[in-house]
Amino acid sequence: MAGIEFGASDRLESMRLLVDAELEALIENEIESGSGQVAELCGSVLLAGGKRLRPLLILLAHEIAGGTDIEEIMPLALASEMIHTATLVHDDINDEASHRRGVETIHSRVGLPKAVIAGDWLFTKGFGLGGCYEENIVRILAQYCADLAVSEFEQLDHVLDLTTSPEDYLRIVRGKTAGPFGAGCYAAGLVAGLSDERAYSLKQFGMELGIAFQLVDDLLDLRGDERMGKPRGADVIEGKMTLPLIHALTLSHGKQRVRLAELIEDFSDEDFDELMDLLNRSDSMKYTEILVKTHLERAVTNLNAFVDSDAKKHMVSITDYVMNRHM
Amino acid sequence: MAGIEFGASDRLESMRLLVDAELEALIENEIESGSGQVAELCGSVLLAGGKRLRPLLILLAHEIAGGTDIEEIMPLALASEMIHTATLVHDDINDEASHRRGVETIHSRVGLPKAVIAGDWLFTKGFGLGGCYEENIVRILAQYCADLAVSEFEQLDHVLDLTTSPEDYLRIVRGKTAGPFGAGCYAAGLVAGLSDERAYSLKQFGMELGIAFQLVDDLLDLRGDERMGKPRGADVIEGKMTLPLIHALTLSHGKQRVRLAELIEDFSDEDFDELMDLLNRSDSMKYTEILVKTHLERAVTNLNAFVDSDAKKHMVSITDYVMNRHM
Repeated sequence: MAGIEFGASDRLESMRLLVDAELEALIENEIESGSGQVAELCGSVLLAGGKRLRPLLILLAHEIAGGTDIEEIMPLALASEMIHTATLVHDDINDEASHRRGVETIHSRVGLPKAVIAGDWLFTKGFGLGGCYEENIVRILAQYCADLAVSEFEQLDHVLDLTTSPEDYLRIVRGKTAGPFGAGCYAAGLVAGLSDERAYSLKQFGMELGIAFQLVDDLLDLRGDERMGKPRGADVIEGKMTLPLIHALTLSHGKQRVRLAELIEDFSDEDFDELMDLLNRSDSMKYTEILVKTHLERAVTNLNAFVDSDAKKHMVSITDYVMNRHM
Repeated sequence: MAGIEFGASDRLESMRLLVDAELEALIENEIESGSGQVAELCGSVLLAGGKRLRPLLILLAHEIAGGTDIEEIMPLALASEMIHTATLVHDDINDEASHRRGVETIHSRVGLPKAVIAGDWLFTKGFGLGGCYEENIVRILAQYCADLAVSEFEQLDHVLDLTTSPEDYLRIVRGKTAGPFGAGCYAAGLVAGLSDERAYSLKQFGMELGIAFQLVDDLLDLRGDERMGKPRGADVIEGKMTLPLIHALTLSHGKQRVRLAELIEDFSDEDFDELMDLLNRSDSMKYTEILVKTHLERAVTNLNAFVDSDAKKHMVSITDYVMNRHM
């Protein structure tokens, strides 16, 4: 699937397959060494596909920074995917989601208690992998995970909060989505031996890419893209204040504003066309699309500090991939 | 409270107060640096009291091993308490517990989603603290957390399983309760510079103490000790196969066995006297008490390799404390 998504890039596809193989070996090893059902359940989610964007970016950031030994960076790449999957397992509990990527969620299959513990196991294994690095790298890992929790709290507080501002939104997205991308690229640069200043450019690349990634997720939720593996409008049903909604609420007035608020507060699939009509009247989808482009351009600008290379080309092609996801 | 519990030991009490103060400073620092509500909620559980047995044992194991710089070991001691509290927050969700130590649980106060994330935050902060140590220490930390998850899975599989054997029980307890004690003492010994072999004696001390600790918990649940902060028989109601129950089911036969099985499978508080009568007929409480003593004696034997010292005296007094908890 990602082979098609990444377009003509054989290199990215072979890197993705390498990450898949490493994750598979890790889970098999865990099952053999006695983690049994926990490892199997976690493996079923971890290995159910996925673009592996986080590990790929870490591998590429390491390479663009001059790293030549992939073994040196692989544990961090795998850690990022384990921790990401841990948050998915716990998010799915909290969103009461029955499916992800078309596969039944862990709590639907084996109940809440095991799903909570399975997520903890994935966190633990992720941190264990990160433990082979110096203290500064472990701190970056721990910090983005802590920020993630703080942002998820804030997001919960903004559920159905129609006064959520673009600033609130961006702060949450920085912690929840962009932070992990940024931290991964930053840490990869440091592992490769970059100065803090140059590694910071990689962090900014990851942050900008991450913001764009979330904006595209917001758009896809409203477009009902089947690649999301969940029904269209799921975010709206959950009361998540995505940027198109925030933008439309800000710009609309009079009867339209009242109707928009009504729709958001009690949304069901039959309201879909009416909601899209209101969002389009305020150009909110278009506005979000433009922001995607802006953040991706900013991401690429942060790579200017690095000489042209195969890694750089592939990092740019990942920004293209994020751009094309919403088209 | 622990001042009384630890008896006449002023040293243990002052160590406990030091740990409390460090945890308090850590939470305050987190609140100030923007973790707001997550840190406050987690702080309300973390700072609600508690014996701080895990951090105290780590500090003492470090000292008995020849460590002289308490700053060197404090992050590990705090990490153990943060991770312990993370598991409590998630366990309380899974047990649907409304109170712990007489305080309302996080999920009762702010709902499931925030409680799941709060536990994740505590895990994350615990691992972050552990990140200042060498890779071998981080591995020990990650391994005991992973074992913990595996054992909790197994415990869930044995809920109301009347065929649970003493071996099943001990395997679960080793992962769930004793492992964290053992790993903490082991790691503390290594940090202080002990050889692996000598640090292993500290690990065994912690494991034996941890098994005894769990057995006492089993006894207190049936005795309805108010220090547990939950109603008597809570384990029985949850279908947890504690050792007194396993022992009684093994020894009883005929009508008594049938009645005991009925009581366990559908227990309510009014059955309490009848259950205790059946447990006493098979001497199951007494059997468990003897095991407590055996494991505590074995714990102390593992300290023989160390010369007498203040730290050793206090480690022994902690085994006395565990012994006296059930009397």
